[in-house]
Amino acid sequence: MSAPDAQRGHAHDVEELRNLGQRYARAVDDRAYDALPTCFTPDAVVEGIRGTTTIADFVTTLRAAPASNGLHVLGAPLLTFTAGTDAAALDTYAVVYRWSDDSPRTTLAVRYLDDVVRTPVGWRIAHRRTVLIWAD
Amino acid sequence: MSAPDAQRGHAHDVEELRNLGQRYARAVDDRAYDALPTCFTPDAVVEGIRGTTTIADFVTTLRAAPASNGLHVLGAPLLTFTAGTDAAALDTYAVVYRWSDDSPRTTLAVRYLDDVVRTPVGWRIAHRRTVLIWAD
Amino acid sequence: MSAPDAQRGHAHDVEELRNLGQRYARAVDDRAYDALPTCFTPDAVVEGIRGTTTIADFVTTLRAAPASNGLHVLGAPLLTFTAGTDAAALDTYAVVYRWSDDSPRTTLAVRYLDDVVRTPVGWRIAHRRTVLIWAD
Repeated sequence: MSAPDAQRGHAHDVEELRNLGQRYARAVDDRAYDALPTCFTPDAVVEGIRGTTTIADFVTTLRAAPASNGLHVLGAPLLTFTAGTDAAALDTYAVVYRWSDDSPRTTLAVRYLDDVVRTPVGWRIAHRRTVLIWAD
Repeated sequence: MSAPDAQRGHAHDVEELRNLGQRYARAVDDRAYDALPTCFTPDAVVEGIRGTTTIADFVTTLRAAPASNGLHVLGAPLLTFTAGTDAAALDTYAVVYRWSDDSPRTTLAVRYLDDVVRTPVGWRIAHRRTVLIWAD
Repeated sequence: MSAPDAQRGHAHDVEELRNLGQRYARAVDDRAYDALPTCFTPDAVVEGIRGTTTIADFVTTLRAAPASNGLHVLGAPLLTFTAGTDAAALDTYAVVYRWSDDSPRTTLAVRYLDDVVRTPVGWRIAHRRTVLIWAD
């Protein structure tokens, strides 16, 4: 790869990595669950607040849940990435709001610790650990 | 344009695009309304919570409003941009706090959906759609 | 420096600058106070909510404080930086949550205005002005 190609690659990588969490937030908030697999590797593992699951089961659970609303407001991530490598880490604080017609809005502060890998179809979360900081 | 110039351009574009929403937030929060036209095209249209307006009328309305305070805390944007093109999209979640001497603080969660274009004086919002998610 | 090197430098600079505030947030929230000097120059000055201090005294005060918890949720910064120069500015809104076993959670909205400089060991905050916007 020539030097300019390498630069194009690095700038593109960073942009895609910084977008990854935001794409996740919109997929879940818009209940666009078909978009969730574009955020994770097919065999990704999610350590969530209610236990550890595969991304496939995670999506199945989301689809089966009663209709409700969510807003995942993410701060900017702390990105750990060495240019040209195929793995990165994202450490993101989020304030998550949830509400429905039947229940008042609740607020959770969480921290997403993501191991991210380069795949032929782009950067994907291979492992997510969700840490609950506090809940209202 | 040589390859290094193209790279300088791309990195600069991304940085300017990521700053755009933050510049808007400071212009309105600091009531530095003269800075608002540097965030929008001259003929930009803003679909706000209270209706659709031109940026010129939007600024006029802000200047005429009773003195109050605001803080627009924006998450990182979801940036859709292909290097070298002249258009981009920013999708930004924001938690907006408003208060004044006479009224307690209210909180709104909004989503800014911005069509952004490259102009001779930099990247500018050509169209903003503001979606109210919830309000306290 | 060749053009590709310059580009590598610019992309790396921006990434490091955008990470700086997030590294600070994790150092204080994780009470990993040994990491704080990697965010500041050795003679950095911090204008905090309770007065102005050196970073050394700031860390000493943090270490001496009663155990408590914090979460510094930072929006994306407004970054002012000209490629190739050795100084930059970061203007970051933050919502800071604090709580302990003995006291309920309080919330502060603050704005960090950071003068940042390039040093042989990376970008560091040389001067921070913390502006309290509101507190609950």
